[in-house]
Amino acid sequence: MSVITLLTDFGLQDEYVGVMKGVMLSINPTAALVDITHQIDNQDVVQAAFVIQGTYRFFPDGSVHLVVVDPGVGTERSVLAMEAGGHFFIAPDNGVLSLLIEKVQPVTLFRLTEEGFYRRPVSATFHGRDIMAPVAAHVSKGVALGEIGLPVDPAEVVHLERLAARMTPDGRVEGRVIAVDGFGNLITSIDSATLAQAFGQEPAHGVQIKIGQQSISGLSSTYANVDAGNLLALIGSRGYLEIAVNRGSAARRLKAKKGDVVLLIP
Amino acid sequence: MSVITLLTDFGLQDEYVGVMKGVMLSINPTAALVDITHQIDNQDVVQAAFVIQGTYRFFPDGSVHLVVVDPGVGTERSVLAMEAGGHFFIAPDNGVLSLLIEKVQPVTLFRLTEEGFYRRPVSATFHGRDIMAPVAAHVSKGVALGEIGLPVDPAEVVHLERLAARMTPDGRVEGRVIAVDGFGNLITSIDSATLAQAFGQEPAHGVQIKIGQQSISGLSSTYANVDAGNLLALIGSRGYLEIAVNRGSAARRLKAKKGDVVLLIP
Amino acid sequence: MSVITLLTDFGLQDEYVGVMKGVMLSINPTAALVDITHQIDNQDVVQAAFVIQGTYRFFPDGSVHLVVVDPGVGTERSVLAMEAGGHFFIAPDNGVLSLLIEKVQPVTLFRLTEEGFYRRPVSATFHGRDIMAPVAAHVSKGVALGEIGLPVDPAEVVHLERLAARMTPDGRVEGRVIAVDGFGNLITSIDSATLAQAFGQEPAHGVQIKIGQQSISGLSSTYANVDAGNLLALIGSRGYLEIAVNRGSAARRLKAKKGDVVLLIP
Repeated sequence: MSVITLLTDFGLQDEYVGVMKGVMLSINPTAALVDITHQIDNQDVVQAAFVIQGTYRFFPDGSVHLVVVDPGVGTERSVLAMEAGGHFFIAPDNGVLSLLIEKVQPVTLFRLTEEGFYRRPVSATFHGRDIMAPVAAHVSKGVALGEIGLPVDPAEVVHLERLAARMTPDGRVEGRVIAVDGFGNLITSIDSATLAQAFGQEPAHGVQIKIGQQSISGLSSTYANVDAGNLLALIGSRGYLEIAVNRGSAARRLKAKKGDVVLLIP
Repeated sequence: MSVITLLTDFGLQDEYVGVMKGVMLSINPTAALVDITHQIDNQDVVQAAFVIQGTYRFFPDGSVHLVVVDPGVGTERSVLAMEAGGHFFIAPDNGVLSLLIEKVQPVTLFRLTEEGFYRRPVSATFHGRDIMAPVAAHVSKGVALGEIGLPVDPAEVVHLERLAARMTPDGRVEGRVIAVDGFGNLITSIDSATLAQAFGQEPAHGVQIKIGQQSISGLSSTYANVDAGNLLALIGSRGYLEIAVNRGSAARRLKAKKGDVVLLIP
Repeated sequence: MSVITLLTDFGLQDEYVGVMKGVMLSINPTAALVDITHQIDNQDVVQAAFVIQGTYRFFPDGSVHLVVVDPGVGTERSVLAMEAGGHFFIAPDNGVLSLLIEKVQPVTLFRLTEEGFYRRPVSATFHGRDIMAPVAAHVSKGVALGEIGLPVDPAEVVHLERLAARMTPDGRVEGRVIAVDGFGNLITSIDSATLAQAFGQEPAHGVQIKIGQQSISGLSSTYANVDAGNLLALIGSRGYLEIAVNRGSAARRLKAKKGDVVLLIP
C-alpha cells in the first residue's frame, strides 16, 4: 500500500480535490490518499514551499507528494518530478519545490515529457487532474521517474527569491511571517538552525523578538509557559519560530499578517 | 477495493460525514471512501445535480456515488438507486440525479424498499446515515440493485425544472451561474455542446458573453491568456462556460452570484 | 484493516491533521483513517466530549478513536488510553473522555508511560503528532493498552463539571446549547433518556421548550413537520434535543449561541 499526499490551494468547497483522487484511484486502486492541506492561500507558492518542506518527512519512506499550487497553469511552465530523501514529489516548476531542493541533498530531478502517462485530453486549466495526479499515481505504482521525463539540473529550475531568514550585518536575524495558522499562531521563516547559528544553542533567555511595535523577551518551550492570554515566542513543532498567545490568537492581538517582518535582536 | 464517493451539503464542521463513513466501513471494511465535496450550498439540489453529473466519470468504473442533499428528509420522498454508465448512484428522489438521467443513457433505476439493508432504527432526520450509507456500502460489496428496491421508470422520478442552458428564438444562448468556486470563478450552466450547437466548433472569437452590465469578447483557452486582473470567459475543466479573472476573483469583481443570468450573443 | 478516527480542534487550514496521518501510516500502513471532525471550537473540551460520546458507536468494533483537543499540551497533564464498549480511545486527561466514562460501563483505563511507543524527539507543543498518533497506530496494530501505560482508576482522571442536563426541584429540565451545527441547528445537552425520565415516553405534545424569550410547544418528529421557515424542537439523530428552523437557521433566527440555557417545562 503506497501513500500519496495532496497539497493544494483548491479549498474544500469545490470538487477539484475529489476528482484528482478519482483519477489516481483509477490508476492505482490501493493507494492511500492523504490530504496535507487544500487551504494554502490562493496561488501562494511560497507558503506551499514551506509546508511541503516541513511535512514530507512525517510520511512513510517512498510516499509520493503531489503539490498543486499552480498559478501558471496553461502557460509554458513545465512540471517536475523529483526524488529526494527517499520521497517523491510531483509539482509545477514554479519554485514550490525550491526550499526542498536547497535543504535536502541530493535530489534527482526530471522535467515531465512523456504524455502517455497523462490523462487525455489534457485541459488547459486543470493540469492537477490531467497531468500531475496521473503521474503521481503511476509513480506510486513504481514507474521510475526516468520513464516519465528528462533529467534536469537543479540549478535550471525556478527558485524562489531566497525566503529563509537572513542575518543582518549588525548581528540580527530578519525573517517574515509565512503563515497564520488556525489558532492565530504566526509561523515565521526563522528556523531553529538559523537561530542556533546566530545566538548559540540556548538562545532562550537573551534574545528579543520584535514584530511591529511589540517586543517579546526570550523563548518559551511551550504555550503554557505563560499565563493564558499572554504573548510568547517559541520554536514550534515544525522547527520554525512561532509567535503565539497562550489560549488566544496572536494574529488578532498583534493585528499581524503574512509577510510582516520579524526581527531577532541579541 | 471498491470506491464509494460522498457528495453532501453537510459541511465539515459537524460529525455527520464521519459518522456515515463509520457506518459504511462497518459493512464494507475495505471500501475506499472519497469526498467529492460536503460544501454544496445548504439544500441546493440543483448545484449537487451539476456536480455529480460532472464528476462521476473521473472515478473508477463500478464506483458507488452517495449523494445526500436531502431537504425532504423525513417526508414521503423515496430514495433511489441507479446504475448508469458503469457507475452506481444512491440519492433521494428529489431531482438530484435528474441531470444524469437526461445525459447518460440507458439508466437502470430502482426505488428502495428492502428495509433489511437499512441501519436500525431509522431516524426521522438522518437518512444519509441510516438508509443511504448502508445501502451504498452493500452495493459496493456487490449486492444487486434489484435486491434492494423495485424498478421504476426514469420518467416517474422527480426531475428538476430544466436547468441546462437554452437557445432563445433570436439565436442567443441563455444560461445561469450555477456555482461560484473557491477561486471566485463563476461556473455557468452553459456546456460546450450547447455552445458548439449555437455557434459552431470554433466560437472563440465572435461570441459576446454578457453578465449583468459587463460584456466579454470571445473565449480564452486558459486563465493566463489575459493579463493578471483581467476578466475572461473560457470552457472550464468541467466542460462548462466559466467567467473568471486571471489571478483574481470574478465573483468579487462583478458582484456576481449564483442564479445570475449569462447571455451569449453571436 | 483497522479503523482509526480523528477528532480535533485543528481545523483544516493547517497541515497538523495530515502530519498525524503520516505518522500513523508510517506505523500501520493499512489503517483506514477517518475524520470525525477537526472543527471542534478551539480548545473546547466539552464539545469534543459530547461529539466522541455520540459518534464512536457508528464505527466498527475495535476502532481506535484519537481525540486531540489539548489546551494543556506541554504541561504535566497525562495522556489516557481507554477501552470501552469494544472500542479504544486515546486522548489527553482533561475531561474529554469523561462523558464516555460516565455512560459506558465498564471502562479499562490506562495512563501512558511507555515512551518507547512515542515519536522521538517529543516536541513540547504537538503531542498529537508525537505521542497520541503513534500510540493510536500501535493500538490499531494490536498492542495491548497494558503494554503502553499503567492502569488508573476512572475516578482518578479529570472529570468535566457535570454537563448533562439536570432536573430542577420544580420538575423542569435544564440544559444548554452544546454546539451549533452547520445548518444552524442548536444541539443541546438534553438527551432522550433524561427527557423520558422527566416527561414519560411520549413527551411530544405537552412539553414547552424555552430558549431566551422564545417558546416552542411540543416536539416534532422531523424538520418537515412544520412549514419552511418555522421553529421546531426534536430529538435529533444524535439522541439529543435539537432546536431547528425547517429549511432555515435556528442560530440566526434566535441569535442563539453555545452555552445558552434551554428549559423544558411540563
